[in-house]
Amino acid sequence: REYQGAPTGTDIECEGWRQEAALRMLNNNLDPEVAEKPEELVVYGGTGRAARSWDAYDAILAELRELGDDETLLVQSGKPVGVFQTREESPRVLIANSNLVGRWDSWEHFHELEAKGLIMYGQMTAGSWAYIGTQGIIQGTYETLAELARQHYPDNDGLRGKTVVTAGLGGMGGAQPLAVTMNHGVCIAAEVDEERIDRRIETGYCMAKTDDLDEAIERAEEAAEAGEPFSIGVHMNAADMFDGLREHGWVPDVVTDQTSAHDELEGYYPSGYTVEEADELRERDPETYVEESMDTMERHVDGILRLQDEGAIAFEYGNNIRGQVEDHRNREDAFDFPGFVPAYIRPLFCRGKGPFRWAALSGDPADIHRTDEAVLELFPEKDHLRRWIELAREQVHFQGLPSRVCWLGYQAGDDPDGLTERARFALRINELVADGEIQAPVVVTRDHLDAGSVASPNRETEAMRDGSDAVADWPILNALLNTAAGADIVSVHDGGGVGIGNSLHTNNHVVLDGSEQAAETAKRVFTTDPGMGVVRHADAGYEEALAEARESDVRVPMRDRGESNR
Amino acid sequence: REYQGAPTGTDIECEGWRQEAALRMLNNNLDPEVAEKPEELVVYGGTGRAARSWDAYDAILAELRELGDDETLLVQSGKPVGVFQTREESPRVLIANSNLVGRWDSWEHFHELEAKGLIMYGQMTAGSWAYIGTQGIIQGTYETLAELARQHYPDNDGLRGKTVVTAGLGGMGGAQPLAVTMNHGVCIAAEVDEERIDRRIETGYCMAKTDDLDEAIERAEEAAEAGEPFSIGVHMNAADMFDGLREHGWVPDVVTDQTSAHDELEGYYPSGYTVEEADELRERDPETYVEESMDTMERHVDGILRLQDEGAIAFEYGNNIRGQVEDHRNREDAFDFPGFVPAYIRPLFCRGKGPFRWAALSGDPADIHRTDEAVLELFPEKDHLRRWIELAREQVHFQGLPSRVCWLGYQAGDDPDGLTERARFALRINELVADGEIQAPVVVTRDHLDAGSVASPNRETEAMRDGSDAVADWPILNALLNTAAGADIVSVHDGGGVGIGNSLHTNNHVVLDGSEQAAETAKRVFTTDPGMGVVRHADAGYEEALAEARESDVRVPMRDRGESNR
Ligand SMILES: NC(=O)c1ccc[n+]([C@@H]2O[C@H](COP(=O)([O-])OP(=O)(O)OC[C@H]3O[C@@H](n4cnc5c(N)ncnc54)[C@H](O)[C@@H]3O)[C@@H](O)[C@H]2O)c1
Repeated sequence: REYQGAPTGTDIECEGWRQEAALRMLNNNLDPEVAEKPEELVVYGGTGRAARSWDAYDAILAELRELGDDETLLVQSGKPVGVFQTREESPRVLIANSNLVGRWDSWEHFHELEAKGLIMYGQMTAGSWAYIGTQGIIQGTYETLAELARQHYPDNDGLRGKTVVTAGLGGMGGAQPLAVTMNHGVCIAAEVDEERIDRRIETGYCMAKTDDLDEAIERAEEAAEAGEPFSIGVHMNAADMFDGLREHGWVPDVVTDQTSAHDELEGYYPSGYTVEEADELRERDPETYVEESMDTMERHVDGILRLQDEGAIAFEYGNNIRGQVEDHRNREDAFDFPGFVPAYIRPLFCRGKGPFRWAALSGDPADIHRTDEAVLELFPEKDHLRRWIELAREQVHFQGLPSRVCWLGYQAGDDPDGLTERARFALRINELVADGEIQAPVVVTRDHLDAGSVASPNRETEAMRDGSDAVADWPILNALLNTAAGADIVSVHDGGGVGIGNSLHTNNHVVLDGSEQAAETAKRVFTTDPGMGVVRHADAGYEEALAEARESDVRVPMRDRGESNR
Repeated sequence: REYQGAPTGTDIECEGWRQEAALRMLNNNLDPEVAEKPEELVVYGGTGRAARSWDAYDAILAELRELGDDETLLVQSGKPVGVFQTREESPRVLIANSNLVGRWDSWEHFHELEAKGLIMYGQMTAGSWAYIGTQGIIQGTYETLAELARQHYPDNDGLRGKTVVTAGLGGMGGAQPLAVTMNHGVCIAAEVDEERIDRRIETGYCMAKTDDLDEAIERAEEAAEAGEPFSIGVHMNAADMFDGLREHGWVPDVVTDQTSAHDELEGYYPSGYTVEEADELRERDPETYVEESMDTMERHVDGILRLQDEGAIAFEYGNNIRGQVEDHRNREDAFDFPGFVPAYIRPLFCRGKGPFRWAALSGDPADIHRTDEAVLELFPEKDHLRRWIELAREQVHFQGLPSRVCWLGYQAGDDPDGLTERARFALRINELVADGEIQAPVVVTRDHLDAGSVASPNRETEAMRDGSDAVADWPILNALLNTAAGADIVSVHDGGGVGIGNSLHTNNHVVLDGSEQAAETAKRVFTTDPGMGVVRHADAGYEEALAEARESDVRVPMRDRGESNR
């Protein structure tokens, strides 16, 4: 099936821009520039799909084209299953993907259902139509590495002169080399699939490639010594790379990983096979595949642990490689290196900060450039934000619909009108649309990895202060509240990032079409959504969140009443 | 702590009736007439609670008293955790109870969190403030038996002249004799605990008792021949009763069971002991108790299977006796008789029918009597409904706020305006409130066991035609859609009925205060909510649901487009 990406321009096929935005975002997720395997409806993250089947995709589009301004389309694991009259102010699309009753909430049962055509893996932003290519993750990776540098090398200029070893140059992992070089560092990244490396080079995310690890180390050392940003993809299996590093006796400054280790069958590649050979093995003998894949993964984790022992800063980058090796190989020491959230992201979550993103439905880069200016005009005091926007303008290529990501928070205490950072910016975009400075509506959405939207004990809620890592009431309340506040699309997914049964998380979209109603919705949604992040972390006892609630007037009932929390 | 139940009358403590309704329903759940252990906040079903702690309860009440008409209170496992501005048309309260990420979704992890004060078991209607005492179960049992009669004796007047053999006259099972006689049938129920039989006789739920099985059979046959409703408790162990029936060579028309077989130690009684002797054995030697209990249970299932072979209609009534005998005695044939949902309830669910209930916030029984009349006026052609309402008026005592249960469905095809049964009735109540014929607002809610609101593979979604038993996207979509449609309270719970990790389900409340806005909300919610039941079963391929969708104009996208479902 040929695939073209999102329609652009100012003419619409649907009854209104809110439906049109859903249609364009779904198609944008499948843009060949954005999706990893659009022909299979796979957007990113192993098998994260945007729709269950092409029939389901066609039916979703047909429903969106007819959907009235007070109707809501229901999508169950990538298939449209109902249309009901709600209200104009209600979401136009409600989505639930790959959710299973707890006792059956495993890949095993998921695969049984998938084989029957009853379910779809939505990952995080794939099944909720919010993926925007590698540019989405780039800022998260940039922020994480910047925070790492701040913590470990406080007097250094970011990662200048430092080396980072990682693996996986897929949909999200492909952002790593660029995020390292944006922080002035040097990156070596193992990737089994040569085409993936080529793609990162073409799009400017990675600078060089080689099959020869020794060459990679040499060039990396040279660049680090010279203090020059540099990145190189090494065409080999990650586990083999770690063996090679040991033989070479070389230890980088930082080590992490973004192979799709969360899925040992469809995401991770076993050592000893080319990609083609492995793909063939997976078809022919999935059990052997899984065994070999897990053997490789165990060696991979051993490699990370060894480098940590020898002085590298190690962290897991949210692909559940620790959980996988603990589970399938009984290796409790797999968790001896930390996850990136407790290490670098949680302090941001306490302030309601998270990966806010927006896309220009016109398809015109000028619209995003106008929003770049707007964000700098609005927050002139934030140097860090300025640097990000400037780097992104220079170095981040648009893929599919022009879009931008930028971490914004609650932090209403800074604003004379008591509006959150997210709301202030969304309202400003809405004005620009209303004034015609931006040609067509802009849709604002976010990653599922956000302050108040996820329960994921191996990643976003790892090691919560009160032990509430696995409590999933929070993402459910977040989805209900987003719906109550009138977001245009609301979704709830199981298993994004860390695999089926390991997480529950939500997402929202708000279409800024310049109308008064859009302004109202934006004001509410971009208060309640980051607000959930503040109350969730306040409830867990984080001082930063309690401070944020105080400074920004967020109501936290039992704290406000001075009653005991329990 | 002394506990009084719900405030009544027409003066309110809150800013509006929607907040007041939440406050009264929460208190009604804890009415000593309604709750099992109000002093521990336990409402029913083992440890199903209405609030996490008395501090949390006080804080919920305080928040409800202050809550504005465009604010929404968030309750996380029985504790108020946030208040946000939404819209007037949004829910006033959003609740998520005992939800856990799949892999941690077990009693074991739940109990760890509970010990830390981080979570609460909400059962189904306890934590969502919708429990109304035992009248809920009578109607369910009545409907199940009525449906059985419709299926197996289509030309008969209900169960007239038919005999039903069962066991267990406890908290819920005690409703069985009355539900049989309300359907004009004859019931023999074995019960080891004589006091339980006496209690059912005192409260009018059972007519007679005996120690002599022959006497019971004789009186039952006489009554059946005469076409007279009759019920008799037989003071003996169920397994022994089945042996006696074999010796006697007598086969009833229907056989089921409601002993607490789900718990072989604390619920089920082994044969060969009086209750006192068994209680003593349990204390002294629990292992022997369990062995003997399981031996008895296996004989019990053998008895049911034998009667089925000899022509009786057999079904399990949700006490997991089949699962127990399969698990502990390796008897796969234990599942050779069906559960009650696939057998009798699912055809109702396909039509969007489910246990609709409503409570008079005035506290005045006259208000419920007026609704009883209204439902009869509205559906004069439904004899079955008339009989239920008339019987309930006579025989079912009010507990706490006067209330009523009545199964209503989608079935908009019957109405000239295309309104669903539920919407028609809710709109009529709203008019009566507006006209002052009912003194104070009425709140309409339902059980979580409803057509489109639950995923529970051992009960409500057992043996779905397409194998989608464990898919939990449906209850999540149901909660989101209820929120989008503007229900006043929306809740999502894990584990009601069948225990943590075994189910996911939702509930809603709509406050009918006589306003135009309430009418709008009722019309939408009571269309979308049963509508989810229709689309969920249509998607699973049930012909009745597809027929309902056709007759009632429910949009089922992929069927309507004639595309393949998969
Ligand atoms: N819909 C449903 O899904 C549904 C509805 C009602 C009940 N149930 C199930 O039915 C069971 C009963 O519920 P309950 O609330 O009445 O429980 P309960 O514990 O209050 O009552 C059980 C009764 O069974 C009697 N009993 C136990 N073993 C016996 C034996 N071998 N022979 C004769 N009598 C025996 C006990 O003395 C007791 O009176 C539970 O397992 C419950 O989960 C399910």
